[in-house]
Amino acid sequence: MSESLLVFAAGTNVDGWLQHFDSTGTTANSVKLGDSIVVIAKGPGTEIPAPAGLPAPKHEVASKGDFRLGRRELRPEGTIVNIGGAKVGDGSVAVFGGPCAVENREQMLATASVAAQYGSVGLRGGAFKPRTSPYSFQGLRWAGLELLEEARAHTGLPILTECVDPRHVERLAETIDGFQIGARNMQNFELLSEVGKAGLPVVLKRGFGCTVDETLAASEYITAQGNDQVVLCERGIRTFEHSTRFTLDLSAVALMKQRSHLPVMVDPSHSVGIPALVEPMTLAAAAAGADALLIDIHVQPEQALCDGKQALVPEAFRGLMTKLELLAMGIGRKMGGVVRPAPDFA
Amino acid sequence: MSESLLVFAAGTNVDGWLQHFDSTGTTANSVKLGDSIVVIAKGPGTEIPAPAGLPAPKHEVASKGDFRLGRRELRPEGTIVNIGGAKVGDGSVAVFGGPCAVENREQMLATASVAAQYGSVGLRGGAFKPRTSPYSFQGLRWAGLELLEEARAHTGLPILTECVDPRHVERLAETIDGFQIGARNMQNFELLSEVGKAGLPVVLKRGFGCTVDETLAASEYITAQGNDQVVLCERGIRTFEHSTRFTLDLSAVALMKQRSHLPVMVDPSHSVGIPALVEPMTLAAAAAGADALLIDIHVQPEQALCDGKQALVPEAFRGLMTKLELLAMGIGRKMGGVVRPAPDFA
Amino acid sequence: MSESLLVFAAGTNVDGWLQHFDSTGTTANSVKLGDSIVVIAKGPGTEIPAPAGLPAPKHEVASKGDFRLGRRELRPEGTIVNIGGAKVGDGSVAVFGGPCAVENREQMLATASVAAQYGSVGLRGGAFKPRTSPYSFQGLRWAGLELLEEARAHTGLPILTECVDPRHVERLAETIDGFQIGARNMQNFELLSEVGKAGLPVVLKRGFGCTVDETLAASEYITAQGNDQVVLCERGIRTFEHSTRFTLDLSAVALMKQRSHLPVMVDPSHSVGIPALVEPMTLAAAAAGADALLIDIHVQPEQALCDGKQALVPEAFRGLMTKLELLAMGIGRKMGGVVRPAPDFA
Amino acid sequence: MSESLLVFAAGTNVDGWLQHFDSTGTTANSVKLGDSIVVIAKGPGTEIPAPAGLPAPKHEVASKGDFRLGRRELRPEGTIVNIGGAKVGDGSVAVFGGPCAVENREQMLATASVAAQYGSVGLRGGAFKPRTSPYSFQGLRWAGLELLEEARAHTGLPILTECVDPRHVERLAETIDGFQIGARNMQNFELLSEVGKAGLPVVLKRGFGCTVDETLAASEYITAQGNDQVVLCERGIRTFEHSTRFTLDLSAVALMKQRSHLPVMVDPSHSVGIPALVEPMTLAAAAAGADALLIDIHVQPEQALCDGKQALVPEAFRGLMTKLELLAMGIGRKMGGVVRPAPDFA
Repeated sequence: MSESLLVFAAGTNVDGWLQHFDSTGTTANSVKLGDSIVVIAKGPGTEIPAPAGLPAPKHEVASKGDFRLGRRELRPEGTIVNIGGAKVGDGSVAVFGGPCAVENREQMLATASVAAQYGSVGLRGGAFKPRTSPYSFQGLRWAGLELLEEARAHTGLPILTECVDPRHVERLAETIDGFQIGARNMQNFELLSEVGKAGLPVVLKRGFGCTVDETLAASEYITAQGNDQVVLCERGIRTFEHSTRFTLDLSAVALMKQRSHLPVMVDPSHSVGIPALVEPMTLAAAAAGADALLIDIHVQPEQALCDGKQALVPEAFRGLMTKLELLAMGIGRKMGGVVRPAPDFA
Repeated sequence: MSESLLVFAAGTNVDGWLQHFDSTGTTANSVKLGDSIVVIAKGPGTEIPAPAGLPAPKHEVASKGDFRLGRRELRPEGTIVNIGGAKVGDGSVAVFGGPCAVENREQMLATASVAAQYGSVGLRGGAFKPRTSPYSFQGLRWAGLELLEEARAHTGLPILTECVDPRHVERLAETIDGFQIGARNMQNFELLSEVGKAGLPVVLKRGFGCTVDETLAASEYITAQGNDQVVLCERGIRTFEHSTRFTLDLSAVALMKQRSHLPVMVDPSHSVGIPALVEPMTLAAAAAGADALLIDIHVQPEQALCDGKQALVPEAFRGLMTKLELLAMGIGRKMGGVVRPAPDFA
Repeated sequence: MSESLLVFAAGTNVDGWLQHFDSTGTTANSVKLGDSIVVIAKGPGTEIPAPAGLPAPKHEVASKGDFRLGRRELRPEGTIVNIGGAKVGDGSVAVFGGPCAVENREQMLATASVAAQYGSVGLRGGAFKPRTSPYSFQGLRWAGLELLEEARAHTGLPILTECVDPRHVERLAETIDGFQIGARNMQNFELLSEVGKAGLPVVLKRGFGCTVDETLAASEYITAQGNDQVVLCERGIRTFEHSTRFTLDLSAVALMKQRSHLPVMVDPSHSVGIPALVEPMTLAAAAAGADALLIDIHVQPEQALCDGKQALVPEAFRGLMTKLELLAMGIGRKMGGVVRPAPDFA
Repeated sequence: MSESLLVFAAGTNVDGWLQHFDSTGTTANSVKLGDSIVVIAKGPGTEIPAPAGLPAPKHEVASKGDFRLGRRELRPEGTIVNIGGAKVGDGSVAVFGGPCAVENREQMLATASVAAQYGSVGLRGGAFKPRTSPYSFQGLRWAGLELLEEARAHTGLPILTECVDPRHVERLAETIDGFQIGARNMQNFELLSEVGKAGLPVVLKRGFGCTVDETLAASEYITAQGNDQVVLCERGIRTFEHSTRFTLDLSAVALMKQRSHLPVMVDPSHSVGIPALVEPMTLAAAAAGADALLIDIHVQPEQALCDGKQALVPEAFRGLMTKLELLAMGIGRKMGGVVRPAPDFA
């Protein structure tokens, strides 16, 4: 049975289309997708000419399979995701730096300062940490969120943090600028739906055992809520190669850029788990077409409570940002953020 | 720093031990584990003789790493999990049969009848289905749960069903006999903790991208709630081999049996995704030491709404049960269930 | 374009068929396959009735893809491979025991004695060892072959050994009873062709990075030489799970048995790399349908020059054989070998 | 027991060192490594001061594990491999373009022309093709070699071709500029040793089921023959992700560059198997630090006899080379080759 996706400008009245499809025995529904309205129709009515007088769609795309709202053809120019002012997908190279986990006030503010000073567009930092073992540090939870707020106030950078429970969505949404869904929760569909409804941008990390197709399908749980502010994030997959923590799949970046209009982020830090590989993999990710990077920074990695081994020290982060800017120029792009004086933490 | 696990009989007053550890600068806490109490101690006090007069532990085990409460040494004789009367881990071969998804009353009752008639000890059936795509059938949800209850009433078999959201735990626990945590949620730690608290048995499926060590670590999120009624379930991992849906890792079964006192289940249906392979893999799983099997049955697989391709038709299930019983005899075991007349569904 | 495989009894004159195909613009050639002749035809002539008077084929099978001579449909009853008198594929459970590597006379003869005494049908032992590093023990090479001969003379058991170089085939074939192609050489196609021509049975191990389809395709390099004495051997694949050395893929055993008429062997020792898992995986392999097992035995594993960690000590091998015999009875099979008095090594 | 690697300038008389080690019960041998001599010593003598008068080594490195001659510490400045005049490892980005398989004179010369015109430093082309199935095109074999020679004569570019059999080494070495060892033969150790002895440069492709450590270990089979002209080549590994043919592991590139002094090549064409991904993966590989690229070009990909699906058409290759040059400038490198007028094929 044929399926079609019809894309209209926001504000278009699509009732006539829905009636037309209904009268031809065709299942149809409309979904808001950012400043567009998409009508998804399945049935015989997609193959016959529509009656005169209906508003013309901006695009009409034959739908195949279950990847619908994120498909590149729906929005060939791509989607720009706005995370508290930081733009992802506008052609720039956007870096979100920060600690893996928020550990204490001093560490968070110092790290945020480093992130801001060398050109990050946003801060990352985990308050709720999903850990393999219940006996590991689980994050400062709500207390961590307050430290993230404080770091935002000092640096002016928006904050991105992970959500692990549908019961946390509402409270987190009051504070943060963007949700992060971790790899372990990529197929926690109840969480995806809940986060999608909150209306904030969502960075969706690929599950380390999941395919590109499954990642794209998971993003539909969010976009189907009418939320087009989704960033897909490659962070390494499980393979037999254990020299690195995971195997960073940069082909997936190029593939997702080609198949989807959603921007793509890469997290080299968690993929490789070795500081000396973060810089080359960051450069490679940008060259492969990544819109954004998520970089772990720690002012004292040897004392980190979570994944410290992979974090860059401030000097290494500065070096990376310098090289990244040069590479960006080579490929005709510019950095999303600007280098600025260190914020003054009282 | 040294760690020790001390196992005491239920009802033992361990306060003296906790005081002793406290007075020696040793972190210690006690956890109920079925009919035992386990004191987990970490610090110098684990290396010095305890004062006279404290109750003697049944076992004392040096703890290494983060796999604690499920370790074989804590309960060398193994744990028997009682799912609404069905025993898993008592030496028998326990089969839980049923449909992948509850689809409608007729299908559910007919399938339950087949499961019961040929010797299942319990019923499986999904009311909440985590699906890769939001556009696929998501299960009948609470309506499905009612059909499961009805099937239990007719067959007398206990029911096992998947829980996908911490907000569902309480309501599900009022009805079902055992929780199933699906592979996609094995590292949804908020869900594990919530389910652990509910007090019912939990079948924990291994994530398809997760190691044996991570599976054992995930079980600690449940046992740390004082719940020792946990069954570990191997259901195939992601590998490059795509002739089968996943690669069933039977070495993991033997490994988990050796490392943990928790019983081990195998789900050959979801692993292989090909009906013709379900029988040989069921036999192989039992030979590898599996305590229980989870088998998809469908009375009309070609009309299944979810994963029908892998389900056994009734005749194939009967054949499998016959061969499984013969093999069980060869390895000195017996079937957990009994073959009986078909229940009469009005 | 249509393809057909026509199977005739040995001695059938198929010239008429070849002329018929030739006259209809159809490519055809004949291959000897054990006691059959197979005509492989591709083109329009496969779809028209053949002229009267041509000898009738025993089977005619539509060919799809590149797996031809090994396809189950060509020989539904299966192939029995005769390795110096040891039968593989006749319904029995055939165990080939021995050391991973031939190390010295004493070790080889003592291990062969153990293998023979507890019911092996043949001996395994590597004279040429393909090792990851050039600095590891590479095997005794030709001197090792002499020790294998001596072990055969003492025990009466046929010998199976690995060939790693096409230049060795002829000289090895003068002595041994069957070739083994190691996992690292499964796609060393020049070697496969050469070994296929030698006329001796070949045990073809699946490459640890290769699919079932590729393994079946590789076997065609041997059968295309007119040699139907091929045993397919599963020995574990590379996956992210590193608790075991490789992941034993027993679904592949069932799959290969269903798709091919060639018998299937399993090497649990090299798959798991842990002695305590060899017994359960041996039982599981037999339950999954394996015709034969390859078991590493070492009289002093701690002194082994190669892969000693996984070898069974004599007592463990005896225990395994006892359990295997009981399981075999449960599944209606018998052991290929017999338990006998220990050979007397002067 | 301690091990040391001592590196001396070519022509140094190391006999005194070997005698010294011998007299202290230390195993030692010397290997030529390009213009160096390396003494590998293992035993107590590595820990005592050497007698006066022995020539001082350029470097002395404590050896751990089996990766010795290729270790970065032995030659911190890196090795430049000279393939018939094309330099790999000198800081430039060196592209070897050409067809996957040599198919016929017209295709080979036209493709070579394209490769040369847009800036390749050398030609690739397979005369001997290791194919999964014996029924696929196996290459033109020796006739293909003649066409490669002709292409070299016309373009002036050196030729790189695969060797699959130790019996072919000598004859190939008379003609070609560099050997390629394919992924399927990376652990065909007899072939590696034979090729190592021939004295020509060797491009060693990583096996798709092999780790970085195993790839480095395999290179020692070549360098142990005194041949330091080895290029390590990443070409994708087998993972569960099948959207691309293999998963290109660019972390391995950075890792191999850090661990070894040997230059690193990447083959994006065979990794991804999709033309639209070749360009982004080429750029990413260069950004990750690859010294060289192997790019499949075909003038009529739809008619290719082998792996045509992944080849770039001439225009796409030109576009890739333009972008690669810009990226190279961004990272402070230059292209190894020059753009030049098309050769004139009579």
